[in-house]
Amino acid sequence: MWRNCVRLARGLGRSAVLRPDPKVSRCGVVRGLSPAVPCSPLWNSVTWLSQARQSKDYALPNSSWSQGMMDLYSRFLEMCKDGTWKRIPSYSNSIDHIPESLKLTSEKERKETRFFPRNMNTEGVGFEYAMFLNPSEKRMVCLFQPGPYLEGHPGFAHGGSTATIIDSTIGGCAIFAAGRVMTANLSINYRNPIPLGSVVLVDSKVDQVEGRKVFLSCQVRSIDGQRLHAEATALFIQLDSTKSLQQQMSS
Amino acid sequence: MWRNCVRLARGLGRSAVLRPDPKVSRCGVVRGLSPAVPCSPLWNSVTWLSQARQSKDYALPNSSWSQGMMDLYSRFLEMCKDGTWKRIPSYSNSIDHIPESLKLTSEKERKETRFFPRNMNTEGVGFEYAMFLNPSEKRMVCLFQPGPYLEGHPGFAHGGSTATIIDSTIGGCAIFAAGRVMTANLSINYRNPIPLGSVVLVDSKVDQVEGRKVFLSCQVRSIDGQRLHAEATALFIQLDSTKSLQQQMSS
Repeated sequence: MWRNCVRLARGLGRSAVLRPDPKVSRCGVVRGLSPAVPCSPLWNSVTWLSQARQSKDYALPNSSWSQGMMDLYSRFLEMCKDGTWKRIPSYSNSIDHIPESLKLTSEKERKETRFFPRNMNTEGVGFEYAMFLNPSEKRMVCLFQPGPYLEGHPGFAHGGSTATIIDSTIGGCAIFAAGRVMTANLSINYRNPIPLGSVVLVDSKVDQVEGRKVFLSCQVRSIDGQRLHAEATALFIQLDSTKSLQQQMSS
Repeated sequence: MWRNCVRLARGLGRSAVLRPDPKVSRCGVVRGLSPAVPCSPLWNSVTWLSQARQSKDYALPNSSWSQGMMDLYSRFLEMCKDGTWKRIPSYSNSIDHIPESLKLTSEKERKETRFFPRNMNTEGVGFEYAMFLNPSEKRMVCLFQPGPYLEGHPGFAHGGSTATIIDSTIGGCAIFAAGRVMTANLSINYRNPIPLGSVVLVDSKVDQVEGRKVFLSCQVRSIDGQRLHAEATALFIQLDSTKSLQQQMSS
C-alpha cells in the first residue's frame, strides 16, 4: 500500500497507483481471510452523502490551502475520473454524515451542534482536509493541512488533533466497509511531529473484518513520502441501528 | 486509585481520598520499581505556570459550566487547601504552558497560534476543563465537560476529542514527572460514548519511568464512577531541550 502511496505522491500516474492489490478481493477481506459480513453497499456508492446537498461541503479548496495541498488535491481529483477513486464530501453537522436509512430515531432532528473536525468558522485555522475513497482497495486517504489553532508543542500539531484526523479517516474507511460503526480501540505511534501549515497524507485501509469487528491500519506521511509522522491501528464495531449507542457499547 | 476516585466523586471527604498510596514513594516510581530519572522539580511546584499571569486562565469556572461540573470543581478546590492537590492553570497559547527555562530558541517568540484544546472563542461550545495535580500520587485529574462543537456520532463526543483530552491530561501528568515530553504512543479503548454536555473525570497517573520513557495510564469515568467511558495507556518521551523536536523524535 505504501509503495502505491509514494508513487501517487510523486505523480507517477494512475496506472502505477491504481493497480488492484491482488491480496484484496472486491467485496472480501484483505489478506486471504474469509469475509464474515457481506460487503457494505456503501462501498460502491457515495451518493447517500449527497442527501446533504443543501449543506456546505467543506472538503473543497479554499484560499487557505497551500500549493502543496492544491497540487495533491488536483492529482486525486484526476484519479477520480474513471471512478476508481471517489471524492468524499464533508459537512459541519454530524447528521449530514449519516444516511437517512441508518439514522436512529433520536438523530432525525437537526441540532445546534458541530462535527468536531469542522467546528471552526474561519478557513485555514483548524482542520483543512479532503478525503478520497478507493473502494476496490478498501482504502481511504485524507489530505490534511493542520492550521495554527491545532497547536500542541509550539509550531506543531497537538497529538489530539493528529488522533482526530486519524480517527476520522480510518472511521470513514470503516463506514464504507460496515455501515455505521464506532471506535472501540485506537492505538497511535507518534514518530515525527507534524509542522503546522504543512500537508500530510493520512492513508488508511481495512485489514480484516470479523463479524461486527472491522480492523484497520493507517500511516501519516509527508507528501513526498519521506517522513513517517504517525502510524496507527484501530478496531471499529459495526452498530445495530435498532439500539442506542450506549446500549451496544455496554454489551 | 479508582477506589479513591469514586470516594472523591461521592464526596466522602479528604481523609478517605487523600490517604497516600503506600505503593507510591514521593519522588520514586510507582509499583516498586527503582526510579531511573530523578524526580522532576516540577512535581512540587506549579509556580512556573504563573509566568503567564498576563494571559487569561481558562481553567476557571464560567457560565457554561453545569452544576455537576461546578460541584466537582469546588470539591477539588477544597482539597487543594492543604497542598496535597494543586489546581493547574491553562492558557490559549501553547508557549504559556512551557517554563521559560525549558523553551527552545524557536519558541521564544509569541505567535498567532492557539493551543488546540483552548482554541474556541465562545465559552461552553468546545473543551471545558480544569486539571488538578496530586504530586505525591503522580496523578493528574481533569474535569471535562464536552461542548456541542465536539460532536462525533450525534449527541456524543467525537473519538478525537476524547483522545485530545486524554492526551492533554496524561501529557500534563508526564510533564510534571519528566519536564518536557512528547507523546510516543497513545492507545485508547473506547467503552461508552460520552454524551455532549455531560461531565466526566479523566484520571491519569504515572505507572513507571525508565530512562527517558514515562509510562502512564488513564481512565475516563462518569462523575458517579458508575460508567467507564474510556481507558488508555500512553508512552511519553522526555525531550532534550538542546535539540529540535524533529531531531529527537527521529532518533
